[in-house]
Amino acid sequence: MGKKAKIRKLRATVAKLKSALKAAKTHTHAVSPLAPDAFPNLPVIEGARFAAVEAGVRYAGRTDVMLAVLDPGTAIAGVFTKSATRSANVLDCQTKLGSDPSGGAAIIVNSGNSNAFTGKHGEGSVDAICAAVAKAAGVAQNRVYSASTGVIGERLPHERITARINDLTAALDAHGIARAAEAIMTTDTFPKGASAEIEIGGKTVRIAGIAKGSGMIAPDMATMLVYIFTDAKVEQGLLQAMLADLTNHTFNNITVDSDTSTSDTLLLAATGAAGVEIEKDDTRFRAALHEVMLNLAHQVVRDGEGATKFVEVRIAGAASDADARTHAMAIANSPLVKTAIAGEDPNWGRIVMAIGKSGAAADRDKLTIRFGDILVAAEGWVSPDYREEDGAAYMKNRDLVLSVELGLGEGAATVWTCDLTHGYIEINADYRS
Amino acid sequence: MGKKAKIRKLRATVAKLKSALKAAKTHTHAVSPLAPDAFPNLPVIEGARFAAVEAGVRYAGRTDVMLAVLDPGTAIAGVFTKSATRSANVLDCQTKLGSDPSGGAAIIVNSGNSNAFTGKHGEGSVDAICAAVAKAAGVAQNRVYSASTGVIGERLPHERITARINDLTAALDAHGIARAAEAIMTTDTFPKGASAEIEIGGKTVRIAGIAKGSGMIAPDMATMLVYIFTDAKVEQGLLQAMLADLTNHTFNNITVDSDTSTSDTLLLAATGAAGVEIEKDDTRFRAALHEVMLNLAHQVVRDGEGATKFVEVRIAGAASDADARTHAMAIANSPLVKTAIAGEDPNWGRIVMAIGKSGAAADRDKLTIRFGDILVAAEGWVSPDYREEDGAAYMKNRDLVLSVELGLGEGAATVWTCDLTHGYIEINADYRS
Repeated sequence: MGKKAKIRKLRATVAKLKSALKAAKTHTHAVSPLAPDAFPNLPVIEGARFAAVEAGVRYAGRTDVMLAVLDPGTAIAGVFTKSATRSANVLDCQTKLGSDPSGGAAIIVNSGNSNAFTGKHGEGSVDAICAAVAKAAGVAQNRVYSASTGVIGERLPHERITARINDLTAALDAHGIARAAEAIMTTDTFPKGASAEIEIGGKTVRIAGIAKGSGMIAPDMATMLVYIFTDAKVEQGLLQAMLADLTNHTFNNITVDSDTSTSDTLLLAATGAAGVEIEKDDTRFRAALHEVMLNLAHQVVRDGEGATKFVEVRIAGAASDADARTHAMAIANSPLVKTAIAGEDPNWGRIVMAIGKSGAAADRDKLTIRFGDILVAAEGWVSPDYREEDGAAYMKNRDLVLSVELGLGEGAATVWTCDLTHGYIEINADYRS
Repeated sequence: MGKKAKIRKLRATVAKLKSALKAAKTHTHAVSPLAPDAFPNLPVIEGARFAAVEAGVRYAGRTDVMLAVLDPGTAIAGVFTKSATRSANVLDCQTKLGSDPSGGAAIIVNSGNSNAFTGKHGEGSVDAICAAVAKAAGVAQNRVYSASTGVIGERLPHERITARINDLTAALDAHGIARAAEAIMTTDTFPKGASAEIEIGGKTVRIAGIAKGSGMIAPDMATMLVYIFTDAKVEQGLLQAMLADLTNHTFNNITVDSDTSTSDTLLLAATGAAGVEIEKDDTRFRAALHEVMLNLAHQVVRDGEGATKFVEVRIAGAASDADARTHAMAIANSPLVKTAIAGEDPNWGRIVMAIGKSGAAADRDKLTIRFGDILVAAEGWVSPDYREEDGAAYMKNRDLVLSVELGLGEGAATVWTCDLTHGYIEINADYRS
């Protein structure tokens, strides 16, 4: 080979190695491989308007504050993190639930700073922001709900937010919900939205919701930040009861990493503009709301930090529903189960381990374990018909269902989680820098 | 530059890139960076003999079965995993504790297969192995304690073990404990041993122990496999009480990954050969035993899968000791705290998050957080004297102490853990293949 050819070949090798090195160092995806194709086309909810601005709280070159303003008569329900170190915003929202809906209401959210564990200063920031919104939007301050999400323990530069409130109210738009969904993202790789439309008494009722969340996801009462809007008319007490109940079947049954946020907030606003009053026993509205909440909860899992697999864990035959949830969460939070899934390893022994450690009742010889429809283990051991290559082939799917039947009673639970990958380590070993 | 020089330079670049690529792809260490310099020189425990062989249970080219034979009169105490799916060996050991010590006793352990969730076959394997040991060692079968560690749910090829029992008894040696420590390793990167010697009534009492464990470490009653031997004479009831109590201050206070093994077994054998009877209120023996147990527990954490940092989490001022332990474990098990430590990020906000989610009592405005001696947060917010660069410099240490004072009461707890790194993902996303 001539010298020129040698140089050409070596240069090609250098280029190839540089690219391989970059790939080896970059385990994360720009957008989660589990993301939906596109943000959905959410319906306009009459009585609700949205805006987003760039306030530079922490991030540059993107929107980071959203405002929603709701017409007079809007009922608002909410569920929040149970964290003992919850943020000043959460504490403030909790005091405001149930306030008189005759005036309007507003919701303001910033990303980039969680305003959690910021002492008295944090409370002052909440007051300053809510007062500015109340004035600009013409609503009572006890009807302004705020949330902050991002780094914990750093002073929230709330003056950057209050400086933009007039710009926000000027930009309010009934079609602005997609921009609002983008403004509340932190480590999220895609904005999250979901909607439903139902006919009740010849009239159309619409529900539209947005969410953010990717890590620190093991909701204890709600998840990260979720805002759902409907034009149905729902009495506040009924709205609150419905929301709390459905949360236990949706957001409270997801986990990315077993860590619970200090800022978890889920607000549901019913403007009543559709002119349809929801009765207590109306199952259609409840089902539609359930669908929207479950969709958003699943999107949070699909954007789990570093996630490459979406996993449904189904438990049946437990001594109680509570026991079933304990088993399901033990499996969904087990680092060993989650890394096996990341490695596409049908390591069902780790599921046995997680059930064993959970503390809930289990009998080794009554356990049945399935991967999808594949019977893996029964009667205390691997099934005689199970072939490892079937399990290995199943684990290559992007969406997985792991089922366990305990054979003890009628208790059941389903939870959703993702795998634990190098991406999670990379995102979280260097989040602040 | 001439063509020759260009080729030389490109070749150097290729070599450098190849080495960087290899490093980027290899996150794991052959031996944990936290390992002690060498296996300690353990004292001979009179009345105890050890042997190890290569039985080929799973691994090739290394020993994988150890046998310890104990002289007549040896009292044996044990604590075991509380897992509901614990192995056949654990269940068998539990029935044998407290059996008549007038004859000898034996302990047999294999690595490579845990014999857990192997149904009736697993029980048959335990019986076959224990019967073979009883015959060859001349001890009663109800005095033969077994353990298996490794993959869950695969048939234990116990015939490979029983075929080597005569070789094991022929090789028994009072100096064989180091070889025994090597034979029980699985994902461990170094064998673990610790010892103590004390003088009581002019006579020397010796304690020597070995352990294995690296992942699936969140003991609920003991950890993985630990065997401790002493030539003291200790009545079985006293030995059991002392072991159970000290376990709560040592092995039960470590966690690598929050997952609890199906095989955790800790046995303590007191041969009595030193001619020293330990009284109930003897604090010297208890302190020496505590020291050996704590040393072994720390070695398990130092060999935590993928670990690069050894972390002590100290909680004080909690409402109760139980609350303190709950907070300490919430911090030590938090994936977000553990990845921050891996990234040498002084992200104390994640400690606040973990305390908040733990479920135990906490008051944001009474929390004090320290990294080593550095006051990080007090009175509900970051300390005015805290400088981020001090925290960042502290996090570069290999051994870290994270302290939280809750300001609520007298409850205290200390637990030990390690960081969560790419190494953990690599080891566990591909353990079985």
